[in-house]
Amino acid sequence: MSASKHPFDSIRDLIASIPEASEASRQAVRARQAELTKPLGSLGRLEEIAGFLAAWQGKAKPSIDRPLVAVFAGNHGVVEKGVSAYPASVTRAMVDNFRAGGAAINQICAAHGLGLKVFDLALDIPAQDITRAPALEKKEAAATFAFGMEAIAGGIDLLCLGEMGIGNTTVAAAIYHGLYGGAAADWVGRGTGIDDRGLARKIAAVEAAVARHKEHLADPLEVMHRLGGREIAAIAGAIVAARMERIPVILDGYVVCSAAAILHALDPRALDHCMAAHVSAEGGHGDVLRRLGKKPLLELELRLGEGTGAALAFGIIKAAVACHTGMATFAEAKVAGRGEQ
Amino acid sequence: MSASKHPFDSIRDLIASIPEASEASRQAVRARQAELTKPLGSLGRLEEIAGFLAAWQGKAKPSIDRPLVAVFAGNHGVVEKGVSAYPASVTRAMVDNFRAGGAAINQICAAHGLGLKVFDLALDIPAQDITRAPALEKKEAAATFAFGMEAIAGGIDLLCLGEMGIGNTTVAAAIYHGLYGGAAADWVGRGTGIDDRGLARKIAAVEAAVARHKEHLADPLEVMHRLGGREIAAIAGAIVAARMERIPVILDGYVVCSAAAILHALDPRALDHCMAAHVSAEGGHGDVLRRLGKKPLLELELRLGEGTGAALAFGIIKAAVACHTGMATFAEAKVAGRGEQ
Repeated sequence: MSASKHPFDSIRDLIASIPEASEASRQAVRARQAELTKPLGSLGRLEEIAGFLAAWQGKAKPSIDRPLVAVFAGNHGVVEKGVSAYPASVTRAMVDNFRAGGAAINQICAAHGLGLKVFDLALDIPAQDITRAPALEKKEAAATFAFGMEAIAGGIDLLCLGEMGIGNTTVAAAIYHGLYGGAAADWVGRGTGIDDRGLARKIAAVEAAVARHKEHLADPLEVMHRLGGREIAAIAGAIVAARMERIPVILDGYVVCSAAAILHALDPRALDHCMAAHVSAEGGHGDVLRRLGKKPLLELELRLGEGTGAALAFGIIKAAVACHTGMATFAEAKVAGRGEQ
Repeated sequence: MSASKHPFDSIRDLIASIPEASEASRQAVRARQAELTKPLGSLGRLEEIAGFLAAWQGKAKPSIDRPLVAVFAGNHGVVEKGVSAYPASVTRAMVDNFRAGGAAINQICAAHGLGLKVFDLALDIPAQDITRAPALEKKEAAATFAFGMEAIAGGIDLLCLGEMGIGNTTVAAAIYHGLYGGAAADWVGRGTGIDDRGLARKIAAVEAAVARHKEHLADPLEVMHRLGGREIAAIAGAIVAARMERIPVILDGYVVCSAAAILHALDPRALDHCMAAHVSAEGGHGDVLRRLGKKPLLELELRLGEGTGAALAFGIIKAAVACHTGMATFAEAKVAGRGEQ
């Protein structure tokens, strides 16, 4: 009787079953914040972060003992359209650089005590040129999503997401244009630093891709497999897996948020366990964050990717946890409270 | 023949002799940035930070091996006017809390590998009530400035400045009102969280203080001794001493910037070696930073003081140095550059 299952059914089923935050944990954090030796609210967003982490971890106090940056790398057929300042070979070379410890993300992970895992996703088989075909077949997209879910297993307690992929700011722009409409140029930035002529080619490619697939873009998972790429699908999977395991997620910038935007379009609750690390200098990211309802922690004119913004934001998050768990209470420190003498 | 030297002459002499940054070092950083395995400029403000640090340290590459948070604590006679939600005894209690490791600044220093020194400045002898008398005698202010200069000696290579002092947001507001004019209410915030009636008392105290001393406020050092306090004078001294020793400084928030503003009013070049850590939630701080020409690194709705904003910003600064010094070049990593195949 039953037809063979659609490759995306299990993704839809998962998203329909995502858990909610623990409001009891958030309240426990609030109660303790009022006892710590500082004026209530004076640590601003650090207090909010402590509550957010505890609520997703389902604990009275948040803890971060095994934080991970997961970087997903993919290649993109659309690079043939001359949309990047760098050749596609740089994706593999940068993966090697990550493994050798020479990239920006390695230095930031070392500075902040973050683990780093790099996943290269069939770099020799680029996603199809999105101006001419779906980036990935549905089964391929679903399998890569599942790979992303598996990738973060292993007992981590905070996940920072990053990516590498020459051509993937073009792909992210196409996703935003496909999801949110507007003009292609609204979503396109200079990526790794393309010149004016390259920018014009990039805008044209984003327009062509959305025009090519426009009959199918009402479904966000169609957007994912048609306009995305391997790292986009894997990041979406990792975000969902983290939610199932109640692991808080720190989103990096322009490209990572395109995977998040697909999930948000499926269900606005799907990103409730995610914080936005920063607003990127790449075109349109600020608007994306407003649509996702996320207020970034940092604004440092970054536009590198790799998870660098997320890893930098982790410095703030680590400090928020340290303050919440390590500070003395007024009673412990024998400090007079408000209005006492 | 010579009259006895005015207590402030040596401060003026010092500021007239402050060194400039090394543009050669800044250029060396720029040249290396272009070789590192990332698109040029893609680390945004991190690249600017690396250049800033190198220029002040006078090195081809910046280094931070002995970073320090110096917290200066003072008490204020104006607390008698009912301007704070907390009693003056909390200054001493919080100094004890710093020494016991229980305050927010302790946790952030531990999280980011910062040294911490706390200097309590005659807490049993509060500065005079600024609505009735100069906060400090000139000689006292000059001696405290000199104390602040000495305090940071000892081979540090980055200085984060913090403060503690019940009543000192009132004093800082008076300094801003004295230096910049406007209405007292423009500069007054709720500090540790005073209620509406307390806020009205605080505004009245700031108005009264500036009115009391208004004949003398054209000279920023008169502002310092009349409207300031011990921690304000010591912080001003520490900023100048850091400049003489080419130590980059990270300014904390609303109160630390009032000491910086005095120096800036004496000579706008006096803060060229200082970065602003964050924009505080305390009233008027954003306007102060614009007047000082400083773009803050963070905006996290902090209003605690203690140097917490500076110590949080250090997480970014540490990462900037790590990226600049630790990343591989394109040649080292065998990554193709722009336009190569």
